[in-house]
Amino acid sequence: MSFNSFGRVFRFTTWGESHGPALGAVVDGCPPGLMLSEANIQPFLDKRRPGTSKYTTQRQEPDMVRILSGVFEGRTTGTPISLMIENVDQRSKDYGDVAKAYRPGHADYSYDAKYGFRDYRGGGRSSARETAARVAAGAIARAVISEVKIMAYVTEIGGDKINHENFDADYIDQNPFFCPDRDAAARWANLVDDARKSGSSLGAVVECVASGVPAGWGAPIYAKLDSELAAAMMSINAVKGIEIGAGFDAARLTGETNADPMRPGADGPGKPEFLANNAGGIAGGISTGQPVICRVAFKPTSSILNPVETINQNGEAANIITKGRHDPCVGIRGAPVVEAMMALVLADQKLLHRAQCG
Amino acid sequence: MSFNSFGRVFRFTTWGESHGPALGAVVDGCPPGLMLSEANIQPFLDKRRPGTSKYTTQRQEPDMVRILSGVFEGRTTGTPISLMIENVDQRSKDYGDVAKAYRPGHADYSYDAKYGFRDYRGGGRSSARETAARVAAGAIARAVISEVKIMAYVTEIGGDKINHENFDADYIDQNPFFCPDRDAAARWANLVDDARKSGSSLGAVVECVASGVPAGWGAPIYAKLDSELAAAMMSINAVKGIEIGAGFDAARLTGETNADPMRPGADGPGKPEFLANNAGGIAGGISTGQPVICRVAFKPTSSILNPVETINQNGEAANIITKGRHDPCVGIRGAPVVEAMMALVLADQKLLHRAQCG
Amino acid sequence: MSFNSFGRVFRFTTWGESHGPALGAVVDGCPPGLMLSEANIQPFLDKRRPGTSKYTTQRQEPDMVRILSGVFEGRTTGTPISLMIENVDQRSKDYGDVAKAYRPGHADYSYDAKYGFRDYRGGGRSSARETAARVAAGAIARAVISEVKIMAYVTEIGGDKINHENFDADYIDQNPFFCPDRDAAARWANLVDDARKSGSSLGAVVECVASGVPAGWGAPIYAKLDSELAAAMMSINAVKGIEIGAGFDAARLTGETNADPMRPGADGPGKPEFLANNAGGIAGGISTGQPVICRVAFKPTSSILNPVETINQNGEAANIITKGRHDPCVGIRGAPVVEAMMALVLADQKLLHRAQCG
Amino acid sequence: MSFNSFGRVFRFTTWGESHGPALGAVVDGCPPGLMLSEANIQPFLDKRRPGTSKYTTQRQEPDMVRILSGVFEGRTTGTPISLMIENVDQRSKDYGDVAKAYRPGHADYSYDAKYGFRDYRGGGRSSARETAARVAAGAIARAVISEVKIMAYVTEIGGDKINHENFDADYIDQNPFFCPDRDAAARWANLVDDARKSGSSLGAVVECVASGVPAGWGAPIYAKLDSELAAAMMSINAVKGIEIGAGFDAARLTGETNADPMRPGADGPGKPEFLANNAGGIAGGISTGQPVICRVAFKPTSSILNPVETINQNGEAANIITKGRHDPCVGIRGAPVVEAMMALVLADQKLLHRAQCG
Repeated sequence: MSFNSFGRVFRFTTWGESHGPALGAVVDGCPPGLMLSEANIQPFLDKRRPGTSKYTTQRQEPDMVRILSGVFEGRTTGTPISLMIENVDQRSKDYGDVAKAYRPGHADYSYDAKYGFRDYRGGGRSSARETAARVAAGAIARAVISEVKIMAYVTEIGGDKINHENFDADYIDQNPFFCPDRDAAARWANLVDDARKSGSSLGAVVECVASGVPAGWGAPIYAKLDSELAAAMMSINAVKGIEIGAGFDAARLTGETNADPMRPGADGPGKPEFLANNAGGIAGGISTGQPVICRVAFKPTSSILNPVETINQNGEAANIITKGRHDPCVGIRGAPVVEAMMALVLADQKLLHRAQCG
Repeated sequence: MSFNSFGRVFRFTTWGESHGPALGAVVDGCPPGLMLSEANIQPFLDKRRPGTSKYTTQRQEPDMVRILSGVFEGRTTGTPISLMIENVDQRSKDYGDVAKAYRPGHADYSYDAKYGFRDYRGGGRSSARETAARVAAGAIARAVISEVKIMAYVTEIGGDKINHENFDADYIDQNPFFCPDRDAAARWANLVDDARKSGSSLGAVVECVASGVPAGWGAPIYAKLDSELAAAMMSINAVKGIEIGAGFDAARLTGETNADPMRPGADGPGKPEFLANNAGGIAGGISTGQPVICRVAFKPTSSILNPVETINQNGEAANIITKGRHDPCVGIRGAPVVEAMMALVLADQKLLHRAQCG
Repeated sequence: MSFNSFGRVFRFTTWGESHGPALGAVVDGCPPGLMLSEANIQPFLDKRRPGTSKYTTQRQEPDMVRILSGVFEGRTTGTPISLMIENVDQRSKDYGDVAKAYRPGHADYSYDAKYGFRDYRGGGRSSARETAARVAAGAIARAVISEVKIMAYVTEIGGDKINHENFDADYIDQNPFFCPDRDAAARWANLVDDARKSGSSLGAVVECVASGVPAGWGAPIYAKLDSELAAAMMSINAVKGIEIGAGFDAARLTGETNADPMRPGADGPGKPEFLANNAGGIAGGISTGQPVICRVAFKPTSSILNPVETINQNGEAANIITKGRHDPCVGIRGAPVVEAMMALVLADQKLLHRAQCG
Repeated sequence: MSFNSFGRVFRFTTWGESHGPALGAVVDGCPPGLMLSEANIQPFLDKRRPGTSKYTTQRQEPDMVRILSGVFEGRTTGTPISLMIENVDQRSKDYGDVAKAYRPGHADYSYDAKYGFRDYRGGGRSSARETAARVAAGAIARAVISEVKIMAYVTEIGGDKINHENFDADYIDQNPFFCPDRDAAARWANLVDDARKSGSSLGAVVECVASGVPAGWGAPIYAKLDSELAAAMMSINAVKGIEIGAGFDAARLTGETNADPMRPGADGPGKPEFLANNAGGIAGGISTGQPVICRVAFKPTSSILNPVETINQNGEAANIITKGRHDPCVGIRGAPVVEAMMALVLADQKLLHRAQCG
């Protein structure tokens, strides 16, 4: 099976490098008859787009998406949808040093070890620019699961967490950090700015909630909804951890405190009300009808201006500082990507469920 | 793609229910010519086997594996290897209550929501007995990656963590908790026993280290080594979180402190010495040559004797206590399963790397 | 993707060798709630079973199937269905010569070239006994597509064709050749008997018709219904050709004579009556609602008593005669296998169609 | 698994419609370090290009390919290679009639039955223009299997066959029919011209030979080399039949006459000389080291100027003639497509063999 595809029935393949002419995705298996145009995709790309605040990379990419196939008279035809985004603001000259020495924390050394050489310009294929293609594909996935509402937000930057009592969903899109807590956002402005000025970087945690997922999506063993989500999230650049519901904290609970008790719900028999959601909406790999919740840990951006000890391609000792234009905290722009991956997994699971269970 | 298969080139499919006549796995894509007999598999099953101490379920299953195909004169032939383990000690009568009401934290409700009904005996397909098939398949995977040494151990039960200064690899197999810290094991004996006696249960965290993985296994995007590990681990029963290397803690580091600096290694140019391993041996989805490290969070066993509020299949309020024989802490027996999944992922990645890069 | 699996959503994996203890299949993705027991499968195995007439191999295999998982209280649960058939009448001592020299027309040489060695007993994995597992899986597929009626029959043995004017569907199961033409069956009795007595063997052509397939199953490009059928049929032992509808003869028609004109059908608008079926019920990879028709060419059994020039494993010249018990015309027992593969492809396509198009 | 992808490790996905802005392919799993530029691909596209003689469609498409990713400094990087070909000479106005009524022999009716509507312009996704993407991908496959030489040629048009005694490999590329027989080419010029002038069309048979394939590529059961070839060829537009080696004629041979005897070869022990190649270079699904040979039947072009009885989208009786620009014999331009599919299958099988057998 291919290395750059994801999904089983609703399946997409991405391509493109940071400094190539373009990047894109091919979405296969999309149901026919859905309304779709570039206007349905562009807003999600705009959320992820670089260069929109001083807290993100200053690379200026319009990230204008073109649909090249699979749509006729404004509707999906059921055939593959090809999406293309041109790269505009490449500055490959910034990468002279990278060509010669390996940036710790980056894929430089491991790519060379695997392939024998690499496209070093901006990280090549390992650049987070690839996630633009995912976000575009994710917008199509949303059309497949119109019954589901997906919301991702940053809950923690550099170890500074939001206060859930301050949670304001409307505020998430009103600040450059996708932060649901007005106070935390104010603190993060200073934190991230300090990191940027000092040539350093910060990590972040992103939480994602999908509400409206009906009970019954998923599978018992290797195509579990949580297993697919784990694969999807861990495939995002800089992600080092993923947890569902109570996650790692569940390991510290007892059977009683971790159980999500049920009682008869207002919607009649067979639709329970759950009194807790430690399971994050997934039991035995299958959705329960509660909101599906996961959290994703992003490491700090590896591209920093402060020098790090490394080796060059001749194996000699070297120090490297990473010029170029980088996000001081990649986790921030990770939020729209996490949303996209949630949508992509759910769309696939919806269709798989329909295949097997009608 | 199928719901009960895992892997791309080295691929296995499991089948079987807790209270059916047998369970098993078919391993496809195994290289030919490897020495293999039941004797290579049985020791791993014995590590996972229930009923060996009072800290695990009292179900008595010999878990004797039979190889039904794919081996000729003691060597793998390259054709599919069928493994079968008979169920011996089923006691389906314990499950009368489960047939009528949904156990919170279990897959009972979600299975019914998906399939319209379920095999309620011992959880049916959602039982952790399925992991015996994985452990058997994992033993074959180990033969494929003989250059790699895999070791999993429990680092935390019920929130009580080991002290890494006490780490003793030899002790792991000498106590019923797969615990590398003699002091922690003593404390856990009491903890787990108390949970068992009080009809409750505990969660756990399992860490797994694979050493000897060469640089270059993995892929840049959706077949990333870490993405595959995340899917593999999250597919294990009761797992709610997975992290690689520093994991969630990486989100609290800076770019400098999270970087794993390199310097020229003793093995000559191109083989760096790494001064840290926050990346857990994986950069950009590809192994770096350092040990591959992950941590997996197991929730407390959902089957507890203490009553929990729920609904029955008519949608009416009910209370349920789960009789049957259960592990007070499923995470303990999760350690051999985590090892198996690590082996299965690495075997597949090794062959995939060989396919693409020769 | 695995080497011994077939299908995308309704997917099965077979395992087992001619002279191992057993063979079997795991069927994954079967919809839940279908009535299923061994009694639904056994009749199809009985049709394929060896040793039932002097025109087939004298190996006596009861081919009793056991369902080991995936069925509860007589209904499929949606989890994998494991099927096992024990081998009973192995006589490995017949294969001493085969161990030393390569049988032309068999997989002996190619297996050795690929794997470095082989299980030579009865052809090992390359034996047509593997098709018993397909037939068992096919019986489950039939339950998935209960709206479809599938019928395969032999139209030609050793170049002697049936006369379509004599076509009698009821006669197919009343003669040992699955022949729909009473006259041809009488001729074939002599033909096959002569071949058997002279230590030779004959080829055959099998035709298969699936009626009741609704319009709309299939896909435009690589998951085309005809492409999947071609892969399925060509994967059967001894098959060397597959054609759909008019097949190779279509290459000799003109656009007008090959077209299948339509006119308004009795079932109302949108359900045309087709005036011909040169397309074999498939246009652009998608079913048209007409019967799906294919023809499959089986080469003569390669295992013959007459000596053939070959080399041995040291590369030296040798002559080989193949003892053991063999079908004088493998194509005959191919008919139930062709039916099974048709059912397996259609079941998968039905579920795939449901996934994408609801 | 996706509907528009082919291959397992060397895997490609195509996209695009006849009258959309562009079409293309994404090739995933290509080994790194191969020399590749547009100049390596263009010659193969030029062979398939329309409008080059009066025997093909007069649509004028330059079919200029662009590589958008996966190549750096002239070499493949191991990451996905995105190929794009812009459509230039669309004339959608020709398709007014097609929008309203179903062309018999085309995918019009089956697409509507499946998807509820269709992109009717030039057949949309079901147009043979899609094969340009395959030919481009095939050029990359050739770089992966540089040890193999692939040659396809037309052996029969409208029932008029070549005389193998006239076979002249050099002549194949010197006539507009990819015909290896100078006499047949002369006859075909008249045949095809007559069909074109009379508004009719003709079928053809294409034969393809791959020499240099080492023994050992393929797999025993569902990933058989012949099974994969069958799927690949049958997925080409207008193909209705595929046979390997002696194919359907093998069904008329005896075990002795069909056997391909071996004797010690000049290349030493273990490398036999085969005295015949009825198997078409494949035994038991695995290559034997002989040339791999298949034949593919193309039906006559369904788009003809002569009226055919049909129904319109309201289900009413209608007659249709297909304007637009069409090949009087699609099989001719099928030859380069058959070559491409042969290359794509072999590249995948080579890498799969390397994965499993090292």
